[in-house]
Amino acid sequence: MKKIVTFGEILLRLSTERHLRFSQATNFNATYGGGEFNVAVSLANFGMETEFVTRLPRNDIGDCALQEIRKYKVGTDHIKFGGDRLGIYFLETGAGVRGSKVVYDRENSAIATIELGSIDWKTVFADAKWFHWSGVTPALSSNAAAVCLEAVKAAHELGLTISSDLNYRSKLWKYGKEPKDIMPPLLQYSHILLGDLDTAFFMTGQEKKDPNYQDTVSLPKIYDQLFNSFPNLKFAATTLRYSISASHQKIGGILYDGTSIYNAETREVTPVIDRVGSGDAFMGGLIYSLIKNPQEKQEAIDFATAACCLKHTISGDYNLATIEEITQLAAGNTSGKVSR
Amino acid sequence: MKKIVTFGEILLRLSTERHLRFSQATNFNATYGGGEFNVAVSLANFGMETEFVTRLPRNDIGDCALQEIRKYKVGTDHIKFGGDRLGIYFLETGAGVRGSKVVYDRENSAIATIELGSIDWKTVFADAKWFHWSGVTPALSSNAAAVCLEAVKAAHELGLTISSDLNYRSKLWKYGKEPKDIMPPLLQYSHILLGDLDTAFFMTGQEKKDPNYQDTVSLPKIYDQLFNSFPNLKFAATTLRYSISASHQKIGGILYDGTSIYNAETREVTPVIDRVGSGDAFMGGLIYSLIKNPQEKQEAIDFATAACCLKHTISGDYNLATIEEITQLAAGNTSGKVSR
Amino acid sequence: MKKIVTFGEILLRLSTERHLRFSQATNFNATYGGGEFNVAVSLANFGMETEFVTRLPRNDIGDCALQEIRKYKVGTDHIKFGGDRLGIYFLETGAGVRGSKVVYDRENSAIATIELGSIDWKTVFADAKWFHWSGVTPALSSNAAAVCLEAVKAAHELGLTISSDLNYRSKLWKYGKEPKDIMPPLLQYSHILLGDLDTAFFMTGQEKKDPNYQDTVSLPKIYDQLFNSFPNLKFAATTLRYSISASHQKIGGILYDGTSIYNAETREVTPVIDRVGSGDAFMGGLIYSLIKNPQEKQEAIDFATAACCLKHTISGDYNLATIEEITQLAAGNTSGKVSR
Amino acid sequence: MKKIVTFGEILLRLSTERHLRFSQATNFNATYGGGEFNVAVSLANFGMETEFVTRLPRNDIGDCALQEIRKYKVGTDHIKFGGDRLGIYFLETGAGVRGSKVVYDRENSAIATIELGSIDWKTVFADAKWFHWSGVTPALSSNAAAVCLEAVKAAHELGLTISSDLNYRSKLWKYGKEPKDIMPPLLQYSHILLGDLDTAFFMTGQEKKDPNYQDTVSLPKIYDQLFNSFPNLKFAATTLRYSISASHQKIGGILYDGTSIYNAETREVTPVIDRVGSGDAFMGGLIYSLIKNPQEKQEAIDFATAACCLKHTISGDYNLATIEEITQLAAGNTSGKVSR
Amino acid sequence: MKKIVTFGEILLRLSTERHLRFSQATNFNATYGGGEFNVAVSLANFGMETEFVTRLPRNDIGDCALQEIRKYKVGTDHIKFGGDRLGIYFLETGAGVRGSKVVYDRENSAIATIELGSIDWKTVFADAKWFHWSGVTPALSSNAAAVCLEAVKAAHELGLTISSDLNYRSKLWKYGKEPKDIMPPLLQYSHILLGDLDTAFFMTGQEKKDPNYQDTVSLPKIYDQLFNSFPNLKFAATTLRYSISASHQKIGGILYDGTSIYNAETREVTPVIDRVGSGDAFMGGLIYSLIKNPQEKQEAIDFATAACCLKHTISGDYNLATIEEITQLAAGNTSGKVSR
Amino acid sequence: MKKIVTFGEILLRLSTERHLRFSQATNFNATYGGGEFNVAVSLANFGMETEFVTRLPRNDIGDCALQEIRKYKVGTDHIKFGGDRLGIYFLETGAGVRGSKVVYDRENSAIATIELGSIDWKTVFADAKWFHWSGVTPALSSNAAAVCLEAVKAAHELGLTISSDLNYRSKLWKYGKEPKDIMPPLLQYSHILLGDLDTAFFMTGQEKKDPNYQDTVSLPKIYDQLFNSFPNLKFAATTLRYSISASHQKIGGILYDGTSIYNAETREVTPVIDRVGSGDAFMGGLIYSLIKNPQEKQEAIDFATAACCLKHTISGDYNLATIEEITQLAAGNTSGKVSR
Repeated sequence: MKKIVTFGEILLRLSTERHLRFSQATNFNATYGGGEFNVAVSLANFGMETEFVTRLPRNDIGDCALQEIRKYKVGTDHIKFGGDRLGIYFLETGAGVRGSKVVYDRENSAIATIELGSIDWKTVFADAKWFHWSGVTPALSSNAAAVCLEAVKAAHELGLTISSDLNYRSKLWKYGKEPKDIMPPLLQYSHILLGDLDTAFFMTGQEKKDPNYQDTVSLPKIYDQLFNSFPNLKFAATTLRYSISASHQKIGGILYDGTSIYNAETREVTPVIDRVGSGDAFMGGLIYSLIKNPQEKQEAIDFATAACCLKHTISGDYNLATIEEITQLAAGNTSGKVSR
Repeated sequence: MKKIVTFGEILLRLSTERHLRFSQATNFNATYGGGEFNVAVSLANFGMETEFVTRLPRNDIGDCALQEIRKYKVGTDHIKFGGDRLGIYFLETGAGVRGSKVVYDRENSAIATIELGSIDWKTVFADAKWFHWSGVTPALSSNAAAVCLEAVKAAHELGLTISSDLNYRSKLWKYGKEPKDIMPPLLQYSHILLGDLDTAFFMTGQEKKDPNYQDTVSLPKIYDQLFNSFPNLKFAATTLRYSISASHQKIGGILYDGTSIYNAETREVTPVIDRVGSGDAFMGGLIYSLIKNPQEKQEAIDFATAACCLKHTISGDYNLATIEEITQLAAGNTSGKVSR
Repeated sequence: MKKIVTFGEILLRLSTERHLRFSQATNFNATYGGGEFNVAVSLANFGMETEFVTRLPRNDIGDCALQEIRKYKVGTDHIKFGGDRLGIYFLETGAGVRGSKVVYDRENSAIATIELGSIDWKTVFADAKWFHWSGVTPALSSNAAAVCLEAVKAAHELGLTISSDLNYRSKLWKYGKEPKDIMPPLLQYSHILLGDLDTAFFMTGQEKKDPNYQDTVSLPKIYDQLFNSFPNLKFAATTLRYSISASHQKIGGILYDGTSIYNAETREVTPVIDRVGSGDAFMGGLIYSLIKNPQEKQEAIDFATAACCLKHTISGDYNLATIEEITQLAAGNTSGKVSR
Repeated sequence: MKKIVTFGEILLRLSTERHLRFSQATNFNATYGGGEFNVAVSLANFGMETEFVTRLPRNDIGDCALQEIRKYKVGTDHIKFGGDRLGIYFLETGAGVRGSKVVYDRENSAIATIELGSIDWKTVFADAKWFHWSGVTPALSSNAAAVCLEAVKAAHELGLTISSDLNYRSKLWKYGKEPKDIMPPLLQYSHILLGDLDTAFFMTGQEKKDPNYQDTVSLPKIYDQLFNSFPNLKFAATTLRYSISASHQKIGGILYDGTSIYNAETREVTPVIDRVGSGDAFMGGLIYSLIKNPQEKQEAIDFATAACCLKHTISGDYNLATIEEITQLAAGNTSGKVSR
Repeated sequence: MKKIVTFGEILLRLSTERHLRFSQATNFNATYGGGEFNVAVSLANFGMETEFVTRLPRNDIGDCALQEIRKYKVGTDHIKFGGDRLGIYFLETGAGVRGSKVVYDRENSAIATIELGSIDWKTVFADAKWFHWSGVTPALSSNAAAVCLEAVKAAHELGLTISSDLNYRSKLWKYGKEPKDIMPPLLQYSHILLGDLDTAFFMTGQEKKDPNYQDTVSLPKIYDQLFNSFPNLKFAATTLRYSISASHQKIGGILYDGTSIYNAETREVTPVIDRVGSGDAFMGGLIYSLIKNPQEKQEAIDFATAACCLKHTISGDYNLATIEEITQLAAGNTSGKVSR
Repeated sequence: MKKIVTFGEILLRLSTERHLRFSQATNFNATYGGGEFNVAVSLANFGMETEFVTRLPRNDIGDCALQEIRKYKVGTDHIKFGGDRLGIYFLETGAGVRGSKVVYDRENSAIATIELGSIDWKTVFADAKWFHWSGVTPALSSNAAAVCLEAVKAAHELGLTISSDLNYRSKLWKYGKEPKDIMPPLLQYSHILLGDLDTAFFMTGQEKKDPNYQDTVSLPKIYDQLFNSFPNLKFAATTLRYSISASHQKIGGILYDGTSIYNAETREVTPVIDRVGSGDAFMGGLIYSLIKNPQEKQEAIDFATAACCLKHTISGDYNLATIEEITQLAAGNTSGKVSR
């Protein structure tokens, strides 16, 4: 089976327990995660061959990240070593009317200082059929953006399917460039785009021509504007999130295939155990489903959305739900019965 | 005060914390529980004299279980010692759309290898007025089933009231027998039967004659079919569970006394802290109420159902709610005010 | 900036984790709190100069409390040392239909044995503009009540604004006096009164003349009865709490300024992480808002109520929400979005 | 088998983890203990029938203590209920050159306010052969001292063997009496006395006539002075403790039977996990051994001393070492091999 | 690089924290381990290619074990799936004069019910140069013993170096066979034997001809008796353990190459954090060193012994010390300086 | 009382629990520390007025550090805010033959990017009598080194006593300068120098003229070489550390006053709970003692060394031992008795 390759950063995640605020914490739970790695874990859990490409520092913290990657059966053969530090993010988990807080401490991380040409993408992609990246990586540094472009070009040349998650984080993009300067050339090669429309227009520097966004009839037209700009695009998808509170979300999803809109049913997600990585869970579900049954678009958006819902019940960055659990939820079973 | 005797297995329960999945757990909370023991704890907490009969291995883990039984003031005078191991179950606590998971590791436990005749039931029951057992015990092994039959016969001869919880677990019953082969003779002596009607018909190998189960008028008729098969039956009861999600249940209850149906009000139970043992909490509440005020059937089903609801808010297998707390909830006070 | 002084008890709070019942606890989380100190922490977090006056025992537990006070930038210059012990309260956190339980162990605490005249209130208030106390302090002992009276008289003489929280606790008041014997002279000097009307009438020994309490028209009249008894009163306020369950509250608030009633919108608060201290959070928010913008009464009740709501999502006695978080919630943003 | 009765206080013990100082603790381990109860647990673990007499408050914390007593199979039939609070002690565990610290918070505990005549000692002792008490109980309050005297007189009249542990704690004895006022009449009835000679002379208000304490020849003479004052004395014993550091002790023991001195070998005890209750472990071992083989005095002091050593390796107040473990250590096996 | 294959059981290890006794534990740390897997982890940490062959149940607990194997970069390609359960062992960690306790609960584990012929050893060994097994596997069941024999025969035929650890556990060997019935044919193919001489003679059913075991001159002669029985033997090695207490060991080592005895210096190991798996750490060090520098026998025994010492400072079953740490200790640096 | 000012970095310290290796950690204990802040905490605990000058980022992690500083009653009035991140260090606590490991992640911290002139040292020192800094600060960046020089010059001009700890860390000093380039001008103003002689010569770029370092006679001569280079020097001191293992140290100390050598007795320190910050504990003890009794030089080195010993028994960076505890140890009481 040919592999799915993802490229990006894996961070040390330090989170407070029991909804404590940062100022109350005397210890942090230490896990690992990062958008593109999270997608790889989802796919590996679904039984697919995966490879995660990143750069790790040669120290004990970098080694911990490496063990974590291996634990989830994600390939590590093309990871580079070097740089000074692993990026960190601190997470305070909210509840009810109090939202979660993220404090980034990821500047000068190993991947931010990666050098162009240091990864032999031809070898990386030799055995691969799919490449996934997200907008977090080009947001880190001009080096990371350059390597990302190098990767999508190589993937394109070798005929891989390319998926992209816009993943806009306003607190990144601090190296002097704006998304609209960087993202359009990167997105030229994408077949699948994840992200809401407003973000898509913003990050690609476009103005939405048809403002009647909410109108079902006009939705395909708006998507078409994007499809026209990025000629390789075959699918655009997004989660639909209605945030009742930090502990209660309603989650739906939309898939557009250039012709029709496919909607997944909106589900109640409460309580929210951990919403970080739920977009990555959606992405992982979508890739899996589009590989397994490329023609079953309704099934794909249902599976992706159910994966996203289930992720909210799982602590940490990754979606550890099984195919069986996701399929059952996609089929409408929300009862949460005890399995024994 | 004469005692209530329960007979069955007590297991080591190893559960993950903070809704973690098994693959995330680096430690397990270690508690103890098992259907029939859980009922005994409920009754001891309500101030009744109880005795739990089981077989424990002579090792440190068996000793831990013994201390746990004593802690809750449940009698241990007739426990047998022998066999190789204490049964274990692993519990992963779900949330929202993700259900909890139980992994059983209870084969070849001390009670599964109990020998017929090893317990002197006449002595056990000498000072007793009530005997409770459940369908889990005969599901463990032919030995356990045989000792269970020996017990109900002795209890019957000595004039004890006998209550039974059907407690069907499809992952048990692995020793070559089906429920319908084993349960009918055991149930001959029961006065009180806990379990939903479909399970009752399935485990007793009967076909429901009147399929209009949902219809209030026909419900007594369906129960009568059971009452006709098991001539000692005086009461049948069941919880009514509507599972919105793993974290949100609606719980009601029904009691049938051979003449009339008594319904307990359905209550919202959210969040669910731990639903394991909530059926045992119902059973404990029902036994207590029927002993205290045998004629107050509405009170009995209200108390049993409120006990079941409160159990969902308590971690571990046992219902540790007090009579006062249960009575207040049965009276409709769901406000969860701070007591100070 | 002139200081806000609060006077009262700080206790060691020993709470069970993970909603465990007391009988299941093998360890207790140890934090500190007490109504008047909680108000001081709120105000210090909002950037105001505060001073907490209390009496602490000269032992390691008292020293821990002292460090806690300093940690939150609350002034400690006028704390007295002496007495035998720090008061303790044990907290079992409920869930859903099971309420939380508090067990007080605060008799003979350092502040209960405080001696009249031991605090030089003139010095304490020299640099102050506001004094806050609550009905818990005079409930502790006749000594504490006497020092409380000494304080309000001194504050009055020095022209400070005085706020009072009725804070009725039926399990206190064990030294032979009833609230109606003690509270009226204390309340003579209050400008701001927190507490529901029934409690206010009960603690001041009055009978409500107009019983049509629910009627919006009559509400000002009922308040006027209080305002007539306590001539310095300028504001009366109360939280409005609808307790759906221990995990789900609806929280509103009312402010009366002698002329008009100001209502804050009622909000859903679920899940409740910790409701202890939510009244103190309201009080802290009200004081802050009335100091910042004395004329903006609607803003004041909105801010106070939002502070109270947010406190329910925070573990421990104190409101650690920021002005920005409270202002956003007061403006209607309940979505609990991730801040990153 | 006739019972061994012990009488005294059981306290909630709140200890810091991982050698943390009090000021670093954000939680406390919650266990229970108290000299006379610790002795009862030792004896129950050795398979003897025991009964613990005390007074517990009727609140949740008192109930926790009650469950703890039952857990260890110590009889609870004669416990009285009443009073306001369970005594507490805080424990900071030292290491190396830093000693452990205890902060007592046990004034006004349930047992300190026990009333003379409230315990029917004749019924308590009806089925008993041995009574054990310690000098902590008369140190708590005049009430506790009076009940203690009542108990020893009743035990004496009923012909029980009486053992006493001097257990001097200078921070107790705060109610206006000194040990020499209270202890001599209590000790009149003792057959066995535990404590070092200096403490014995101090607490009984005597001056040591022969000062050459260290001299082996004179040691019996000094003991004889005590034996002459307390005519029922048959045995005096003491641990010998050489404190290298908080983590390293050398422990020996001496037994005098009115004729000869029996010495147990001094053993290295390092690391010390928890030394609280090691004297009680010695006492429990001595009572057990003197009951089992009254003539084997060397065996008795060896067993008691080995029990004391093993206690230092066990967390909490009680000695949970088994007879087999103690016997092996008493026989000189200090190797701490893995048992598997 | 050709692989090193080990074959055996991996168990779930449930250990108490903070030296607690089993009866005090309310949770267990959950890790994984087993002699042959521990050796594989050591070798993988040293940078060698390894493969662990075992049988795992298809349930969540088996999946956890699988993730653990991957985490440490040990190959999993030949693991079989089936059977009912993962074996478990409970561990109570001793201290000082109290030894650790192991309770085995590993009967009927997946590997105990492995079927002869189910593993294609030719494929397993295709890419391998070394095979390691231990005496625990044939002790589990006749099935496991038969598969073990199958493995050593295949390894022999394919020319692999074979190492064996006697690893005698008296509580295993419960299926009706004794070591002397099973071990000799298995050891026929071994090149390297780990274990003390007494165990070697006992498990191979021989009587030691020369009893002057302690005498340095006679030691080679005694070893020669073994080498004569097992003609493929090239090396015999053993740790030398002097157990001062559970917390203090002295550790040396001996290697015999058929000609000369090589002694490693004996080192103080205190405190002992975890001694389980220290023999496996020795074995892993020995294999590594003999592969790297087959002629440097003194270096080999020094490295193996230092690895064994370091393992005692590391929690869990595996030796996680690095080559650099081991080499430094082997060179005599015991100072435990801070590396920063 | 005039203040003692210290200047340097405070870091977030993330340490593994229970001697776990980094690769085993699933959570980190989060505390704070840094050489110069640790000295300030020591002095504040001894009752002295202190002020800590640093630069903190304006984020939640910086706020946590600020609360920590306040908790220990160290002044915060002159802290600057700005920069991107708080420095971090990861700590793996060793045991026995395995040393502890520190991984620094402190580049680009708030203090490393501090700007020259941003601190108004005249105001800082207005109310101060003593300034303490260490060689860690100039090792961080050229900015930090420049501000450090600015500080010592200002302190010198204002007549403060200046103490310096050489604190050489080879993994710092990465910005292109060597200690010998930076330290000599800084040390010109020092009155008290802490550090061993080899480090002193290395960091000041000198060659030791008299190599007979071990010889008591020559020791003053060697020190005199330093005193000649740095004309303000009045005292030089160093701890003497003999590292038996990570868990066992022997600790002594030396003070030279330009005339005589004062030696503190060497003490056994075992077990080592945490040795990080033990040099700072020594420094804190020395400053305190020299301020209290400037003429009692033997007392000063005894107190400083005892403080250093006690620090090893305390978790975290700070010495939380009391004056009484240190004085007792300095007087030779190493017994670690229980204080109760």
